[in-house]
Amino acid sequence: MKKKLKMAVIGGGSSYTPELIEGFINRYDEMPVEQVYLVDIEEGREKLEIVGALAKRMVEKAGVPIEVILTFDRREAIKDADFVITQLRVGLLEARGRDEHIPLRYNAIGQETTGAGGFAKAMRTIPVILDICKDIEELSPDAMLLNFTNPAGIITETVLKHTNVKSIGLCNLPIGIRMQMAKLCDTDLDNVFIEMIGINHLNWTTKIVVDGIDVTKEVLSKASEAKGLTMKNIPDFGWDKEFLQALGALPCSYHRYFYMKDEMLAEQLESVKTKGTRAEVVKRVEEELFELYKDPNLAIKPPQLQERGGAYYSEAALNLVSSIYNNKGDIQTVNVQNNGIIPCLPDDVSVEVNCVIDSQGAHPIQLSTEITPQIRGLLQVVKAYEELTVQAGVTGDYDTAVQALTINPLVGSVNLAKSILDDVLAENKKYLPQFN
Amino acid sequence: MKKKLKMAVIGGGSSYTPELIEGFINRYDEMPVEQVYLVDIEEGREKLEIVGALAKRMVEKAGVPIEVILTFDRREAIKDADFVITQLRVGLLEARGRDEHIPLRYNAIGQETTGAGGFAKAMRTIPVILDICKDIEELSPDAMLLNFTNPAGIITETVLKHTNVKSIGLCNLPIGIRMQMAKLCDTDLDNVFIEMIGINHLNWTTKIVVDGIDVTKEVLSKASEAKGLTMKNIPDFGWDKEFLQALGALPCSYHRYFYMKDEMLAEQLESVKTKGTRAEVVKRVEEELFELYKDPNLAIKPPQLQERGGAYYSEAALNLVSSIYNNKGDIQTVNVQNNGIIPCLPDDVSVEVNCVIDSQGAHPIQLSTEITPQIRGLLQVVKAYEELTVQAGVTGDYDTAVQALTINPLVGSVNLAKSILDDVLAENKKYLPQFN
Amino acid sequence: MKKKLKMAVIGGGSSYTPELIEGFINRYDEMPVEQVYLVDIEEGREKLEIVGALAKRMVEKAGVPIEVILTFDRREAIKDADFVITQLRVGLLEARGRDEHIPLRYNAIGQETTGAGGFAKAMRTIPVILDICKDIEELSPDAMLLNFTNPAGIITETVLKHTNVKSIGLCNLPIGIRMQMAKLCDTDLDNVFIEMIGINHLNWTTKIVVDGIDVTKEVLSKASEAKGLTMKNIPDFGWDKEFLQALGALPCSYHRYFYMKDEMLAEQLESVKTKGTRAEVVKRVEEELFELYKDPNLAIKPPQLQERGGAYYSEAALNLVSSIYNNKGDIQTVNVQNNGIIPCLPDDVSVEVNCVIDSQGAHPIQLSTEITPQIRGLLQVVKAYEELTVQAGVTGDYDTAVQALTINPLVGSVNLAKSILDDVLAENKKYLPQFN
Amino acid sequence: MKKKLKMAVIGGGSSYTPELIEGFINRYDEMPVEQVYLVDIEEGREKLEIVGALAKRMVEKAGVPIEVILTFDRREAIKDADFVITQLRVGLLEARGRDEHIPLRYNAIGQETTGAGGFAKAMRTIPVILDICKDIEELSPDAMLLNFTNPAGIITETVLKHTNVKSIGLCNLPIGIRMQMAKLCDTDLDNVFIEMIGINHLNWTTKIVVDGIDVTKEVLSKASEAKGLTMKNIPDFGWDKEFLQALGALPCSYHRYFYMKDEMLAEQLESVKTKGTRAEVVKRVEEELFELYKDPNLAIKPPQLQERGGAYYSEAALNLVSSIYNNKGDIQTVNVQNNGIIPCLPDDVSVEVNCVIDSQGAHPIQLSTEITPQIRGLLQVVKAYEELTVQAGVTGDYDTAVQALTINPLVGSVNLAKSILDDVLAENKKYLPQFN
Repeated sequence: MKKKLKMAVIGGGSSYTPELIEGFINRYDEMPVEQVYLVDIEEGREKLEIVGALAKRMVEKAGVPIEVILTFDRREAIKDADFVITQLRVGLLEARGRDEHIPLRYNAIGQETTGAGGFAKAMRTIPVILDICKDIEELSPDAMLLNFTNPAGIITETVLKHTNVKSIGLCNLPIGIRMQMAKLCDTDLDNVFIEMIGINHLNWTTKIVVDGIDVTKEVLSKASEAKGLTMKNIPDFGWDKEFLQALGALPCSYHRYFYMKDEMLAEQLESVKTKGTRAEVVKRVEEELFELYKDPNLAIKPPQLQERGGAYYSEAALNLVSSIYNNKGDIQTVNVQNNGIIPCLPDDVSVEVNCVIDSQGAHPIQLSTEITPQIRGLLQVVKAYEELTVQAGVTGDYDTAVQALTINPLVGSVNLAKSILDDVLAENKKYLPQFN
Repeated sequence: MKKKLKMAVIGGGSSYTPELIEGFINRYDEMPVEQVYLVDIEEGREKLEIVGALAKRMVEKAGVPIEVILTFDRREAIKDADFVITQLRVGLLEARGRDEHIPLRYNAIGQETTGAGGFAKAMRTIPVILDICKDIEELSPDAMLLNFTNPAGIITETVLKHTNVKSIGLCNLPIGIRMQMAKLCDTDLDNVFIEMIGINHLNWTTKIVVDGIDVTKEVLSKASEAKGLTMKNIPDFGWDKEFLQALGALPCSYHRYFYMKDEMLAEQLESVKTKGTRAEVVKRVEEELFELYKDPNLAIKPPQLQERGGAYYSEAALNLVSSIYNNKGDIQTVNVQNNGIIPCLPDDVSVEVNCVIDSQGAHPIQLSTEITPQIRGLLQVVKAYEELTVQAGVTGDYDTAVQALTINPLVGSVNLAKSILDDVLAENKKYLPQFN
Repeated sequence: MKKKLKMAVIGGGSSYTPELIEGFINRYDEMPVEQVYLVDIEEGREKLEIVGALAKRMVEKAGVPIEVILTFDRREAIKDADFVITQLRVGLLEARGRDEHIPLRYNAIGQETTGAGGFAKAMRTIPVILDICKDIEELSPDAMLLNFTNPAGIITETVLKHTNVKSIGLCNLPIGIRMQMAKLCDTDLDNVFIEMIGINHLNWTTKIVVDGIDVTKEVLSKASEAKGLTMKNIPDFGWDKEFLQALGALPCSYHRYFYMKDEMLAEQLESVKTKGTRAEVVKRVEEELFELYKDPNLAIKPPQLQERGGAYYSEAALNLVSSIYNNKGDIQTVNVQNNGIIPCLPDDVSVEVNCVIDSQGAHPIQLSTEITPQIRGLLQVVKAYEELTVQAGVTGDYDTAVQALTINPLVGSVNLAKSILDDVLAENKKYLPQFN
Repeated sequence: MKKKLKMAVIGGGSSYTPELIEGFINRYDEMPVEQVYLVDIEEGREKLEIVGALAKRMVEKAGVPIEVILTFDRREAIKDADFVITQLRVGLLEARGRDEHIPLRYNAIGQETTGAGGFAKAMRTIPVILDICKDIEELSPDAMLLNFTNPAGIITETVLKHTNVKSIGLCNLPIGIRMQMAKLCDTDLDNVFIEMIGINHLNWTTKIVVDGIDVTKEVLSKASEAKGLTMKNIPDFGWDKEFLQALGALPCSYHRYFYMKDEMLAEQLESVKTKGTRAEVVKRVEEELFELYKDPNLAIKPPQLQERGGAYYSEAALNLVSSIYNNKGDIQTVNVQNNGIIPCLPDDVSVEVNCVIDSQGAHPIQLSTEITPQIRGLLQVVKAYEELTVQAGVTGDYDTAVQALTINPLVGSVNLAKSILDDVLAENKKYLPQFN
C-alpha cells in the first residue's frame, strides 16, 4: 500500500482553500491525503480560522479521514510534508492595490503580475519564498514545492536558481485556455490538446488539436470574434483577425497588456475612477466570500467562489499532485527549468510548457511548432526582465531593479522606471528587507 | 603587381561623395583605384553632375590617375567592379521627412533608422538593394558589396539572406565611438580598442581598452557627465550615472530612443514645431553644400561637409576596402552574418561586431565580455523586429509588417502599428512595388 | 466512428509476418485493420506465398474481418495506405552473410548493423527506401512510414533528410531492455520506466524507475553479473562491474562490439569456423520456420518464431500504430529527428529516445539525466559515421564511403576502410545502383 | 616607458632553453626582458647548471642587460613574474620511455602525447601544474602562464577548468604547418595564412591562403605526394590522395596515429626493436646537446638544437609574449577555452584555433570553414577522452581513467584499457600522488 500524504498549504487562509479541500475530498481514493496543514501568519489569523473551520466541516460532511490542522508555525507544517503548496499573498490585497495604483500614476499599466505591478509583487514575495525554501531544505528535503504564488514564473525561477528545493510552478491559465478551446470547438476538455510556447502569463498557444486533428487555423479564424477567451480579471477585448493569423498562435489573456497597451491603459485609467482597481473589486468579492464561509451550516465549497477569478487552480494543483503520486505519465502545462526546451531562452530560466508528469517530476516535451520571430522577440525581452527581477529580488540591488523595469515593455524607459521604483520601495518598505 | 581597382558608387550624387573621393586620392598608393563610377538615377541628375564635376576637379588637382565616370547606367558601373558601394537614399530627403513625421502624428518616435521611420526606409530600400544584387550576381559575382545605406543592419541582413552577393554592412557609429573614447581619454585613436555587442544602431560598448589597459569602469563613470558622446543627429542628453554602472556598458547614441523614449519624443514634438524634423535641417545643409560644390574653383572636399553629420563614413569605408585589398588582418567593427558570435541571436541575422578584415572578408572575433540580461533582452526584441522587417520588405506582406512594428519597442501595439503602417504605405506608394 | 486502416507491409514475405498478423488480430478492437497488403519482390515469391497463406489462415481462424492481400505491385499496396511498414532485407540472408564475412577477412568486426557490415547493408537499403518514399510521396502523402529495416537509425535518418515522408524508425531493442529490467527487478513490464540516451543500436539506459522509484544504481550493480541481458544474436559476455559504475548507465547489447572489441572479434573468428556467421545460423532457423509455415493446419503464430531473435518487433510496431491511431499520448522509445533533444548531436540526425506518441506523431521528451563525456564521445563519433553513411548511400560517392568507414571505431583506418569497401562494392554490385 | 619583464621558466634545465634565451636576446628591443628565472628541481641540477651557464654566456656575448637567475625555489621565480613558461617533463625521458613501451606491450600505439602514452604523461603532469598554479594564484595572480608542456591541450584544459590562472597553451605544430605550407607553395611564411579546426595534436588545416588567395584545393592535391609535411618525431608516411580530397582538409602529423593506426603500430613495433622508442632516440640527442652546452667557449645556440625536434617552440612562445606585451592584435594559433568557437564541442574545453593576440589575451576568431562530419566525429571522441583524462588526472579516480582510455580510439576497449592503466599506475607510482 502506498504511503499516505501530508500536505502543507502556505497561505492556508486564502479564499481559494475550500477549492483545494474539495479536491482533496473528491480525489481521496486516488490520492489519500492524511493531513492538511493550513499555515498562515498572525495577521491572517481571522481568515485562517474562518476558512479552516469551513474546511473541517467539509471534510467531516464528506466522511473522509483527512485531518485538517490550522497552524501559525510554518516549520511544523513543512516538516516531513510530501507536498508544500504556496498560495500566499505578501501584504494582502492592500499591497496589490498599491501595485495597481503606482504605475497608473505615471501612465503605465498597473497590473498584479505583469509590468511594474508584478515586479513589486515579486519583490515582496521573493524573500518569503526563500525563507520557506530554507525550511523545506532543512525539514523536508524531498518534498515537492508547488508554487501558485504570482508572479508564478518569477517565483519558480527564484526557487530553481537559488535553492535546492524540488519545485514546479503552476497557474490556472493553461487549463483555462484548454477549457476555452473545448468550449469554442464544442467538445469535451479531454479531447483537446494544446501546445504552448512561453512563460507564465505570456504564453502563446501555437497548436490546438481536437480529437487528434490539428484545428489551429480554424480556431485562429474563429478566435478573433469569440467572446469569453479571457481570464476573469482582464477586459475581454477581441483580437484583430489579421493580427492573429499572422501571429500564427493564440495569445493569452495577459498579452493584451502588450499588444493593446494603449487601450488597456485607457481602460485602467477609466476603470480606476469608477470601480477602483482590480484589487478593490477582489477585496469586495473576498469579503462576501468570507461572510459566506462563516456560516456554520456551510459544509461545501460555495458556488460563488467560482466567480472569484481563480477557477481551476485547485484542479490544476491536484492534477499535478495526483500524477506525481500515481506516476501517471500524463501531460500538463507547468512551469519548470528550461534546459533547452525553448532554445531561444537561457537554460536556467523558468518556462511554461507541456510536460510529462510522473513520479520523477515534470519532463518537458519537445515543441512541435516553430518559434517565429514575432513570438521570440517579445518572449525574450520579457524573460530578460524576469531574470533581472529575480536578481533584484534576491540581492535587493536598486540598480538591477532599474535595469529590470527599463527593459520591461510596459515601462520601457529609465526615468519612468526610477520614478515607479522609488514609489514601490517607499510604499512596500516593511515587506522588502532585502532593500534595506 | 596587384590589380588596380574599379569602384562602383551607387548613389554617387550624394553630398558625401567628395569625402570618398578625397579618400581614394589620399590612399592611392596603398590602394590604386583606377576607375570610380558614380551612378545615380535620372531624378538625381543635377546633383550627380555637380558632385561629379567636383570629384573630377579634385582628382585632377591631386594629380592621381583615377578616372571618374558619371553614369545613369547602373549595370555599366557594376560590370566587373571590385567593390560596389551603396550610399543611396530611395525617395530622397522628402521621404525621410515623411518617415520622421508619420510616427509623430501618433505620438511615436519618428526617426530615420530606428522605430517606424526606419521601418519605412527599409521598405523603400529593400526592393532596390535586391535589384542591385541581381546585377552584381550577373555582372560581377566576385565583387564585394559595401553597404552604407540605412537601416544598414536590415539592408545587410536582406542581402545576406536573399542573395548570393558577398557583402559587408558598415556604419560610422563604431569608429565615431572609438573617436569619442579617444577624446574622453585624451589619447590617439590608434591607442583605443573597444568591444561592441549588438546590431547596427543598437550596440553596446562593453569594453574600452586604452594603451592595453582595460579602462571600462573609469570611462563609464566619466561618460554620464561627458558631453559630445553622441552623433550629430541625436540630442545630447546625458546618461543617468547609476544606470550606466548597472548596465555595465556604454549605450550608443540611438539607445536614447529606447532608454529615454518619453524625453526623446517630447524633444521631437517640440523640435518639429520650431525647426522641422531632422530631414528638413539636413535638407538646408545639403542645399548649402551643393552651392559650395558648384564653385568651379573648389577642388578639395570643403570643410563644411564635416558638419553634415556623416563624419568618418569615408574613413570607415576606405579602411575596409584597404584591409581587404591589402589582406591586412586588422580589426574593424562591421555588419556581418552572426553565425553564433552573439549566441543569443539566430545564426542567419546580421550583427555589428569586431572582425578581422583580410582578403577573405570579415571574420568575427569571439566576445570577451558577457551579454547581460539587460543587454540581451532589448537586443533580442529589436533583432526580431528586424527579421520581420526583412521578411515584410522582401514579401510585401502587410500582416508581417504589422507583426514587425508591433514588437518594435518604439511602437509596441497592434492598433498603433496598423495606423502608422497604413500611412507609410499610402505615402510611399511609388517606392513600394512589393506591396502593390 | 473512426476510419478503418489500410496497412502496407513491404517485405511481407518475412518470417516475422505471422507476429504482425497476430498483433493485428489481437488488437482488432482497439485498432480495426481492414486491409493488410503483404508486398514482396519476385525473388521472394515463394516465401510470400507461404507466409501469406498462413496469414490468411490465421485471420480466418480468428474470425476477424481483416483482408490479407498478397501482391508484387508495391504501388498498389502503398496507395492510400495509412501506415507503411518496411521489414525488407535487400539481398536476403545471402547478402547478410557477406556483410558478416567481408570484415572478418581483415580482422574487423563483421556484424549486420554495426561496423562495416551494417554499412554494407545501409548501402543496399538506401536506394530501395528512397524508391519506396517516392511512391509514398505520390500515392499516400499522409501515410506514416514505420521503418524496421536495419540499420534502422541510418535508414530513418535517410528518410528524414531526403524525403517528405512522415516516418518513425523502430527497433525491438528498447522494449527488450525494459523487459530485461522487469525480469531483473522481478516486476511487470508496465511498472518499468527507462530513460535512454542514444541512437539505434547504441543507446545507453541512464535511468531505470520501478514503481516510481529510481533504482538505477541498484540495477547497475546487479547488471554486471546478470545473465540474459543481451539480444539473442549477441554473445552474452558480462560487463565489468567497475566499468558499469563509472559509465553510470547500462550499455545495450551492441555496445559489446565497441567496449569489448577484441573479445568479440575473437569470438566471431572462432564462431565462424564452427557454426558459420550469424546469417548462416539464421538461415537454418528460417528454413525450419518456413517448413512449419507450410503446414496447412497451422493457423496461429508458431511458438518457434519467438526463438528467431526478433522478439517484440510486432509488439513494438503495434504499440506505435495503436498510440497514433488512438491518440494515446503514452511514451515509447523510437527513432526520430533530434532537433536538440540530444544537444550534443546535430539537429537533423536521427536519435532513439523516449517520445510521447499521439495522433500528431512522436514527440521527444527532455532528458532528465546527464550526458557524460564517456557516453558523449562514442555517441558522437558513431553518429558522425552514420551521417557520412547516409551521404554515401544517397550519392554513391566512393570517397565519402571511405570517410564514413575510417571514422567508425570498428574499422578506424584509411587503408582498412578501402580494403573492406572494395570488397563490399564488388560483392554487392547488383544492389548498389548509386555506385555504378 | 613600458615596464620591463620578469620571466619564470619552469623546467629551465631543458635542452630547449638556449632557443628561448636566443629569442629574448634577439627581441630585446621590442620586448625588454629584465630577468629570466630558470627553475628546476633538484634532480635536474646538473642540466640546469649546464644550460644556465650557457644562457649566461649567451647574454653576455650579446651585450643585452638580461639577468639570468638559476634557482630551485619555484616560488622565488614565480613571485611577481609577468610570464610563467612551463616546459617541464615530469619523470624525465625515462618516464617517456615507459609511456612509449607500455601500450606496445598490448599492441596499442605508444606515443608521447596521443593514446595511452599521452594519458600517462597527463597523469604525471596534472598534479605538478596544479601546484604551480597555486603558486601563481598566490604570488603573481596577474601573470600569464604559457604552457608548452605536453599533452598541451589537456594541461591547458586542466588549468582553465581547475584554477584561476590566466593561461594560453601553445605548441610548435601550427607554426610548423604554416612553414610547411610556405615551403610547399614556395613563398615566405608571412604570406601564408591557415585556418585550423581542432585541438592540440589533432587539428585539421581546412583553409590555406597564400598572398590573399585561397589555395586549399591545390595544396590538398599536392600534399599527398609531398615529403616533409610532418614533425620530426613522426614517420613521414604519405597521405592517400582521394582520402585527402574527401577529407577536405590537411590532417596534422599526429593524425597518422588515427588514420593509419595499423601501419603506425607496425612501424613502432619494428622500430622499437632496432633503435628503441623515440624517448631513447631523443635521450641520445639530448646527451650530445648537453655535451655541446658544456663547452665554455660556446656562447650561442648551437645549430644542432634545430635537429632536436622542437623547432620553432621558442619562436611560437616569443611571438605570443611579444603580441601580448606590445598589444599587437596579430593572429596566432593557440590553445584557449572554447566558448562556442567550435560549436560541436563543450564550452569549457580547450581548443587550438586562430586567435587575435593582444594585451587582453587571446581572442578566438570565428571559423570560416565548415566542420564536416568526418572531422567532427573524430574531434569529438578525442576531446571527450581529454575531458575524462583531465577529470581522472585531477581526482585520481581509477574508474574515470578506465572510461577515458576506453573511448580513446587508440585503445578502444575496456579490458585493454585496464591492462594498460594498471601498468601505467604501477610504473609511475612516485609521480601519481592523486592515485595513492
